[in-house]
Amino acid sequence: MDGTGKDGSDTSAKIPAPDLLADLLADDLEAVNLLIRARMASKHAPRIPEVTAHLIEAGGKRLRPMLTLAAARMLGYTGSDHVKLAATVEFIHTATLLHDDVVDESARRRGRQTANILWGNKSSILVGDYLFSRSFQLMVETGSLRVLDILANASATIAEGEVLQLTAAQDLRTDETIYLQVVRGKTAALFSAATEVGGVIAGAPDDQLRALFDYGDALGIAIQIVDDILDYGGTSAVIGKNTGDDFRERKLTLPVIRAVALASAEDRAFWVRVIEKGDQHEGDLERAMALLAAHDAIGYARKSALMWVERARQALNNLPANDLRTTLSELANYVVQRVS
Amino acid sequence: MDGTGKDGSDTSAKIPAPDLLADLLADDLEAVNLLIRARMASKHAPRIPEVTAHLIEAGGKRLRPMLTLAAARMLGYTGSDHVKLAATVEFIHTATLLHDDVVDESARRRGRQTANILWGNKSSILVGDYLFSRSFQLMVETGSLRVLDILANASATIAEGEVLQLTAAQDLRTDETIYLQVVRGKTAALFSAATEVGGVIAGAPDDQLRALFDYGDALGIAIQIVDDILDYGGTSAVIGKNTGDDFRERKLTLPVIRAVALASAEDRAFWVRVIEKGDQHEGDLERAMALLAAHDAIGYARKSALMWVERARQALNNLPANDLRTTLSELANYVVQRVS
Repeated sequence: MDGTGKDGSDTSAKIPAPDLLADLLADDLEAVNLLIRARMASKHAPRIPEVTAHLIEAGGKRLRPMLTLAAARMLGYTGSDHVKLAATVEFIHTATLLHDDVVDESARRRGRQTANILWGNKSSILVGDYLFSRSFQLMVETGSLRVLDILANASATIAEGEVLQLTAAQDLRTDETIYLQVVRGKTAALFSAATEVGGVIAGAPDDQLRALFDYGDALGIAIQIVDDILDYGGTSAVIGKNTGDDFRERKLTLPVIRAVALASAEDRAFWVRVIEKGDQHEGDLERAMALLAAHDAIGYARKSALMWVERARQALNNLPANDLRTTLSELANYVVQRVS
Repeated sequence: MDGTGKDGSDTSAKIPAPDLLADLLADDLEAVNLLIRARMASKHAPRIPEVTAHLIEAGGKRLRPMLTLAAARMLGYTGSDHVKLAATVEFIHTATLLHDDVVDESARRRGRQTANILWGNKSSILVGDYLFSRSFQLMVETGSLRVLDILANASATIAEGEVLQLTAAQDLRTDETIYLQVVRGKTAALFSAATEVGGVIAGAPDDQLRALFDYGDALGIAIQIVDDILDYGGTSAVIGKNTGDDFRERKLTLPVIRAVALASAEDRAFWVRVIEKGDQHEGDLERAMALLAAHDAIGYARKSALMWVERARQALNNLPANDLRTTLSELANYVVQRVS
């Protein structure tokens, strides 16, 4: 960690925090990748590793498994169960991506065609179920009932959040409280479980487990808000090639919720038409972005993301100071840099 | 159990074995139903209990949860964790039905429209995921790592069997060995896990656990073969309103595998066309049924089902003799009565 200053944003301008984290955890990450490859195999159904490899080897950042590894190592863990838990977390994540892409009818992810497009929805549903079962086997192998409890609860929160998003997404009454429930489900629950189980396996006391949970929770929420902002072109508000996916899918994300809360009657009628009724025409995305700008809804969402980043960094104060803690703090800064 | 003779088939001609079992386990079953209702609730997403209730209250026989209850009680268990495990097993079953109906594009189940028709595929996928997570929470509450291990393995076998069916179903090289793997996955794995975890929670020794596993495994296989036979009109070979679903879905079930194995070159070309290529025309189902009859493929499948029933009954010999054991033995006879 030579040359890494305390100011995360300065340092990560040189080496991005996820890469710093990957360097610090290089051996563990290699073990995780080996375990993932071993456990995604299927003696009887070659379709399973085929679909899984497409997604898992497409260059995801392995952010969630790194959080589990970092939490355990930061607390001095010297065993090998953290590798199993990191693979568990990645399998759960991959399973939810497979199902999400079917539910959202997505065609592209990580720059490639989605599994549902390449192999069909049926394979995506069933391979997702298989990976979830495999994750379950892996965590049972650690023999920790506390770990199992945390991951079972996280799984239920994830699934509930997805159903909530399905039913609440196009309802203009969705407020920031419901938004936060959805975000905890779709994103933050797996982040907070990933950090907490790393602590559990390291035998951390309850106050440290709470700190790990809070860090993962706040980091996950910040990441989701940043994604929401980028979907409307980020702080530059320029329409890029990926701008407006959430708009077309009629998702009530934080910028839109803010703009709806401040909307005039006329503007509200616009939101009812394009989000609730899904009646969208040319020029509507531009009008939506103009409304977001008029109410500084992107700036509001950005402030919210920065607040969650600050909460994540604060939570780390209750954990031992070392290179990993410093890098996790930089990681929190890193995730909001794209909208700074 | 007064008036219940040792000859299962005679007795169950009066009261069907599933009803006898439900009578013997009435209080436990009531507790299972209460627990299911409590745990399928969702504070945030009312869509979840709506979809779940549609399926769970549609009058399924609760066969799998009864097996868990019966196994535990037969071995003298007096606690209440068997109720949690029975609800767990029913949740896993319901989750797989929700996903199966999406994958098979089914429109009707248990005499009603399927959830995927009523609420759409998205709800079925996500509510299935939710129920699987809820089942996971319930089993963690028992605190038994051995139970968790069995159910994690069963879940993986189920998912693997579904993927295998997806890829192998329309491949004429599918033989009885592959068929058995698929059947263990789609049906028998949950039956054998249901009986085994009942024994684990009762603290049974390994030889009794093995017997419980073998009973559930053989019973599940027999039930699936009987379903396969009934799909071609049963032993009467008369086309009823549900005849031929497997044929239309191009599933390689045991009767077809048998007929293909004995087929002439001309008949094999027929099977290639209708099953592998899915090129089906009027009169093809009748020709398929004629080929099954010519090779006594239904009789062959029926003999196989009876062999598995006998194995199930034999397995019970290693368990304590009491009313529940007698009824489980009658249950094995009962499942093949529809093709006797």
